[in-house]
Amino acid sequence: MKHFDLVVIGTGPAGQKAAIQGAKLGKRVAIIEKNNVLGGAQINTGTIPSKSLREAALHLTGANQRGLLGDAYRVKKNVTIQDLVGISSQVIRHEWEVIRDQFDRNGVELIWGAARFEGPNLIAIQRDESSEMITGDQFMIGVGTRPARPASVPFNGTTVFTSDEVQRLDKLPKSMIVVGGGVIGTEYACIMATLGVRVTLVEGRHQVLGFLDSEIAGAFQYFMRMASITLRLGEKVEKIEEVEHHNGTSKKLVQAQLESGKTLRAETLLFAVGRQGVCGALGLENVGITYDDRERLKVNEHYQCLRKVEVPAEVPVLPDGTTEGEHDGDDGRFQRRATDEAKPEHRWEPVEHVYAAGDVIGFPALASTSMEQGRRAVCHAFGVDTGNYNTDLFPYGIYAVPEISMVGKTEEQLTQEGVPYEAGIAHYEEIARGQILGDRTGMLKMLIHQDTHQILGVHIMGTGATELVHIGQAVMALGGDAEFFINNVFNFPTLAEAYKVAAYNGLNKLAHV
Amino acid sequence: MKHFDLVVIGTGPAGQKAAIQGAKLGKRVAIIEKNNVLGGAQINTGTIPSKSLREAALHLTGANQRGLLGDAYRVKKNVTIQDLVGISSQVIRHEWEVIRDQFDRNGVELIWGAARFEGPNLIAIQRDESSEMITGDQFMIGVGTRPARPASVPFNGTTVFTSDEVQRLDKLPKSMIVVGGGVIGTEYACIMATLGVRVTLVEGRHQVLGFLDSEIAGAFQYFMRMASITLRLGEKVEKIEEVEHHNGTSKKLVQAQLESGKTLRAETLLFAVGRQGVCGALGLENVGITYDDRERLKVNEHYQCLRKVEVPAEVPVLPDGTTEGEHDGDDGRFQRRATDEAKPEHRWEPVEHVYAAGDVIGFPALASTSMEQGRRAVCHAFGVDTGNYNTDLFPYGIYAVPEISMVGKTEEQLTQEGVPYEAGIAHYEEIARGQILGDRTGMLKMLIHQDTHQILGVHIMGTGATELVHIGQAVMALGGDAEFFINNVFNFPTLAEAYKVAAYNGLNKLAHV
Repeated sequence: MKHFDLVVIGTGPAGQKAAIQGAKLGKRVAIIEKNNVLGGAQINTGTIPSKSLREAALHLTGANQRGLLGDAYRVKKNVTIQDLVGISSQVIRHEWEVIRDQFDRNGVELIWGAARFEGPNLIAIQRDESSEMITGDQFMIGVGTRPARPASVPFNGTTVFTSDEVQRLDKLPKSMIVVGGGVIGTEYACIMATLGVRVTLVEGRHQVLGFLDSEIAGAFQYFMRMASITLRLGEKVEKIEEVEHHNGTSKKLVQAQLESGKTLRAETLLFAVGRQGVCGALGLENVGITYDDRERLKVNEHYQCLRKVEVPAEVPVLPDGTTEGEHDGDDGRFQRRATDEAKPEHRWEPVEHVYAAGDVIGFPALASTSMEQGRRAVCHAFGVDTGNYNTDLFPYGIYAVPEISMVGKTEEQLTQEGVPYEAGIAHYEEIARGQILGDRTGMLKMLIHQDTHQILGVHIMGTGATELVHIGQAVMALGGDAEFFINNVFNFPTLAEAYKVAAYNGLNKLAHV
Repeated sequence: MKHFDLVVIGTGPAGQKAAIQGAKLGKRVAIIEKNNVLGGAQINTGTIPSKSLREAALHLTGANQRGLLGDAYRVKKNVTIQDLVGISSQVIRHEWEVIRDQFDRNGVELIWGAARFEGPNLIAIQRDESSEMITGDQFMIGVGTRPARPASVPFNGTTVFTSDEVQRLDKLPKSMIVVGGGVIGTEYACIMATLGVRVTLVEGRHQVLGFLDSEIAGAFQYFMRMASITLRLGEKVEKIEEVEHHNGTSKKLVQAQLESGKTLRAETLLFAVGRQGVCGALGLENVGITYDDRERLKVNEHYQCLRKVEVPAEVPVLPDGTTEGEHDGDDGRFQRRATDEAKPEHRWEPVEHVYAAGDVIGFPALASTSMEQGRRAVCHAFGVDTGNYNTDLFPYGIYAVPEISMVGKTEEQLTQEGVPYEAGIAHYEEIARGQILGDRTGMLKMLIHQDTHQILGVHIMGTGATELVHIGQAVMALGGDAEFFINNVFNFPTLAEAYKVAAYNGLNKLAHV
């Protein structure tokens, strides 16, 4: 039976970086993949496919250049699903090679099959025709999530589907209902609308992408509507079913009945509400690790998995000055006696040799953060210090149309926290590079502390947003202030100039406070 | 006669920012423009037109997407000069409006006409049909430069021309000789090659863009050649003339005779060697300001213009221990008596109320730096502190194909200065975003101090180079080290990931030192 210093389960972003980090520390590492392809959702069904699809859609339809070349400009009039998927599968194949090559170069042993804990240090790997057992000192679970598939939704993979199946559609539909206004639903709604699909997006809350700064979200919703997307916000879907086409043909339509009484009909429906862990098959009961009802894991700050331990109810401590309970000593604290009704409570304690990272541990569930979690988990497992890690400063990137990115706080958060700030705003239209690109919708908002002039948040919508945000991130992480953007020379013409314009705008407003 | 606190001459980047800065300080400001359009070379003949042309050429020919879509992919088979210039003039018109609007909003008085100093504080403004006189307390000269036009070159504006006339060509030539491998020559050579023009570039030195890191320059030259550009490096042009077409038609060709004996022939020739100031007409003799033989101005660190003052030869001071001269006191210094042969020498002293900024003061002559110089000059004129200004850290952007940008030192500079460093390299092909974009040529090089791990230079070639460089610039300016890129999460997939890959690459190499 083979023994490894580190056994990683899953080859998505968290697993990859965990395995490579282990190998770089000189450890003997195995990584297990149960699907027949490497890379997890990031490469095969999630990040890469949707981003490639977006890039191809924008280019092939000429949407990127319409501002400059006129609205009538279109590179290719009839884009087929083959045009789009051809590009994405090329990228996917290349990524498989890159991952494979990284494992080989670093001496990571790749084992195909489904992993299951048979004991605290023992893993069984099951394949169609064979199986094997391995042992390990440390474990890292990075099995990811898959789209939630509620039983009430009549999924069929061709007209009613999740984001996992979009890439397999054999033709572009005329119309699509997207249920869910999170990152996945919003990105696909924008891509499909770019391709000329008539899209209706239903979201239970009153704003798509609830974590965004609301000025940016408001502007984004405006541009979605300008792109002919119908938004049904604050609406809940009651029932989804296939119905006969009203014109009597054999072709069916998908119907979504909303709680408000509205009925939506379209050729297709993309269900994009919630994702679901896949921990049930991992034999975690054999290690004592608990997962929640969506099969996701709880971890501590070192990414060690937790198990629930039942403990007798503790005697609660009450603050000074309450009248309930009786005085129990001279230290001024009041304590209440355990009442008869006190139920046993739970405590979480770490399973020290089993780590988890990536989507399976929940928020923020981004490829970028998953990689870093995987790496940090393994460093901790082998006692390597990873330095300071500012989790407040990881950026969000939404590859919608237009692109959106943010780092730091929103105006709403700052207001709630009572932090005095001013907002500096720049529109791409004002800067030369925005003109050259023909981007009429881009904007950058910088939130500046009223007193210290430190940057509290950067919110960008428009061309290059996901790249540009890193300039603001670096300045925030290294303690720069708004004056940084005034006192440093930027290339001309670039979109980075928007930082300068926004800094001037914000500081000018502050000069009058 | 109107009086102003500040009179700015020229509406290019330096002049614009100077005037706006003056107005923001509450000063009465006039700005004078002798051409019939605003913005100087930046807007009308230089930066904006060439960058717009580049953007349009890349998009209309599909060059941006060839990696992903195959080499045969072309958006528009026959791109005409009208397609290209239409886009650029749209951007130019918009920029005129933006500048005009900025002057109006800030109460800057725009005066059309040619300015000439009639005395230290008196300016005459000459127009075709009228003239006026104004006075000022402070002056800022931002008159820019124009392409040098040596008398030996038979310029005719249609087949032999400078970069000022490229935009006015009525059709795309089949072939072009570009003389000069500086920024302007290189950018146009790449744009023309993208458009299918057969380009030969002649440069007297053995490398184009002499200031670049030589690994980047080498790779860039490789890609220029891959784009069918013929490079004639280390070659000097002896004679340029129009000659009969060898096939006997009436159509003429341009011939460039090289010193090495080679003869180059093409339909057109772009002469891009050197630029020339336009100070001769400004009446600077009436203020005592000196300009050099290329009509450029000398300034001090505050951007104040200098005048040459003749001084009697000073008695030179020799270091201790020399035997020459005689002892002249008890302070241990040796002095030499003024010899008979000592010629009068020159001293430079500032003309305190006349500033100059932008191309007219020479290096680096970038729109980005000119803006900042203009702003700083005016702040100094009115006693406003502008804080620290790290002139070592302004970025260079070259809008060639591929795009290039750098900040900080090159490998050659560091080697010469004896600074121990390691280079971390990332190729766009290795990162997912590079794959999605289909950029096969992009690379990022980060120079890391061997001991402190500080970033000494960032060199990027490929998509988004001019934007991405600002992330490195921010980290350098704020004292971050290579570990910054490891310890911070970046959006995925982005080109910014190249920083992470390069940091890992460099730090891995250093781990083995």
